[in-house]
Amino acid sequence: MLDRNKGIMIVGLGLIGGSYARGLKQAGYRVGAVTRSADTLGYALDKGWIDEGATSLDASFAANYDIIVLALYPGVLLEWLAANRQFFKKGTLVTDVTGIKCAVVYRAQEILGPGIEFIGAHPMAGREVYGIRNADNAIFKGANYLVTPTPANTTEAVECCEELGRTLGFGRISRLSPEKHDEMIGFLSQLTHCIAVALMTCRDTSNFPEYTGDSFRDLTRIARINADMWTELFLQNREALLEQTDLFIAQMQRIRDAVASGDAQALKQWMTLSTERRTLFDK
Amino acid sequence: MLDRNKGIMIVGLGLIGGSYARGLKQAGYRVGAVTRSADTLGYALDKGWIDEGATSLDASFAANYDIIVLALYPGVLLEWLAANRQFFKKGTLVTDVTGIKCAVVYRAQEILGPGIEFIGAHPMAGREVYGIRNADNAIFKGANYLVTPTPANTTEAVECCEELGRTLGFGRISRLSPEKHDEMIGFLSQLTHCIAVALMTCRDTSNFPEYTGDSFRDLTRIARINADMWTELFLQNREALLEQTDLFIAQMQRIRDAVASGDAQALKQWMTLSTERRTLFDK
Repeated sequence: MLDRNKGIMIVGLGLIGGSYARGLKQAGYRVGAVTRSADTLGYALDKGWIDEGATSLDASFAANYDIIVLALYPGVLLEWLAANRQFFKKGTLVTDVTGIKCAVVYRAQEILGPGIEFIGAHPMAGREVYGIRNADNAIFKGANYLVTPTPANTTEAVECCEELGRTLGFGRISRLSPEKHDEMIGFLSQLTHCIAVALMTCRDTSNFPEYTGDSFRDLTRIARINADMWTELFLQNREALLEQTDLFIAQMQRIRDAVASGDAQALKQWMTLSTERRTLFDK
Repeated sequence: MLDRNKGIMIVGLGLIGGSYARGLKQAGYRVGAVTRSADTLGYALDKGWIDEGATSLDASFAANYDIIVLALYPGVLLEWLAANRQFFKKGTLVTDVTGIKCAVVYRAQEILGPGIEFIGAHPMAGREVYGIRNADNAIFKGANYLVTPTPANTTEAVECCEELGRTLGFGRISRLSPEKHDEMIGFLSQLTHCIAVALMTCRDTSNFPEYTGDSFRDLTRIARINADMWTELFLQNREALLEQTDLFIAQMQRIRDAVASGDAQALKQWMTLSTERRTLFDK
């Protein structure tokens, strides 16, 4: 189980990695960090968010840590694991923070092999800004934290990972399979980001800001998007995202056709269903 | 010009009509109301939001008012105007609150004929609830108020209508043509409502509320929708809405295809453009 004698290493000190470090240090853990930027390490050390840092891993640094949190983009994550697996001590628990799971979890388990356990996690929190200078563990308060075990995971690892989420202040901790996770995130998160981007790029909008109401602002808040990260997330979750996007486009097309043919009855039925369903999503 | 000696008649006491009455009474105007429901009139009289009310108009009631605000759905508005135009005194200024303009403004001017001026207005405010019991002029504070004059309108009428918006507390008063208004509203407001409804109706979402983050909640807030009103607004603005919807669907399809073919460069370009453009919409 997770206890304050355990050392936790964070790999990657961006918005999420930095916020993990800050929150775990606050909770009394010994926190080390590995990140390529010496400047970032210096900032985190100055702030007291980490106890020590390194710009690259070696066996003596790794020996101090029982848990490793990979706070890297999915592609880099797998590369980093393959290159650094040799330094991990036996019994280390490795987890992550990426927003897609199938493409990461199974490959990570394969790379690590026996003796070192990987368990996927997705902290559902973020901001429209990034980098260590925006790190703030307050973003986790009340948010969802998803653990995505596979048949290869032990109960101890699942519980330890859940405890990590509770320690960081997440509001709801859930377990679901990597497949179910990716379907759900394809719909709730990735498709919504596609929609926001499509809205902002489907036509010239330069004359519109002065007329904009809150509906449009709310719908496009997430149109300010980290292009590198989200492109990678979209492409690594290709099948699930395409399935959800196609469902949405087909329904948009049906609504469009009902407007074109003046089918008031169909429009009202969808609006009534939409109103009913949305009620369940109220906080 | 608008001054406190003028009497203002509100026709229809729903959320918007009721909020107009409440705000204008607060500002010191003499306010009368016409609405079919005696219960609604009684409620508004009890609250002190109107000075007098009637369930149907006659010439003696109409003689007390210089300005008439039609707070009705577009279809009912035109029917009501045709049936009651005979009671209006010469020189009356008539305006409205509907969310579409071409389908209302030109027909209304035609029905009224010479001697009675119609000028379209769109208070861009609303709530996900409706009816007199939710009326509250606080919803106008800081919101946009659009006046949509045609070549048939006098400068006096335009200025009087703008003054009405200022009196009610709107934050920004703008003028634009009915055509430009409908294009803009087709994109900023109607298309966004279509998207929210399509998201809630394109698949079963019953297992999702527990995993939902703020992005999905923000995008679907307006999926709780007044089915009768919005169906009418969509169908009365059919051409403009279809044009905007087709632009959006085509861009969704391009994003979908870029995901399918793994075109990271195209995705990043759209995300970068989207981020730049969205910045202009910050409050």
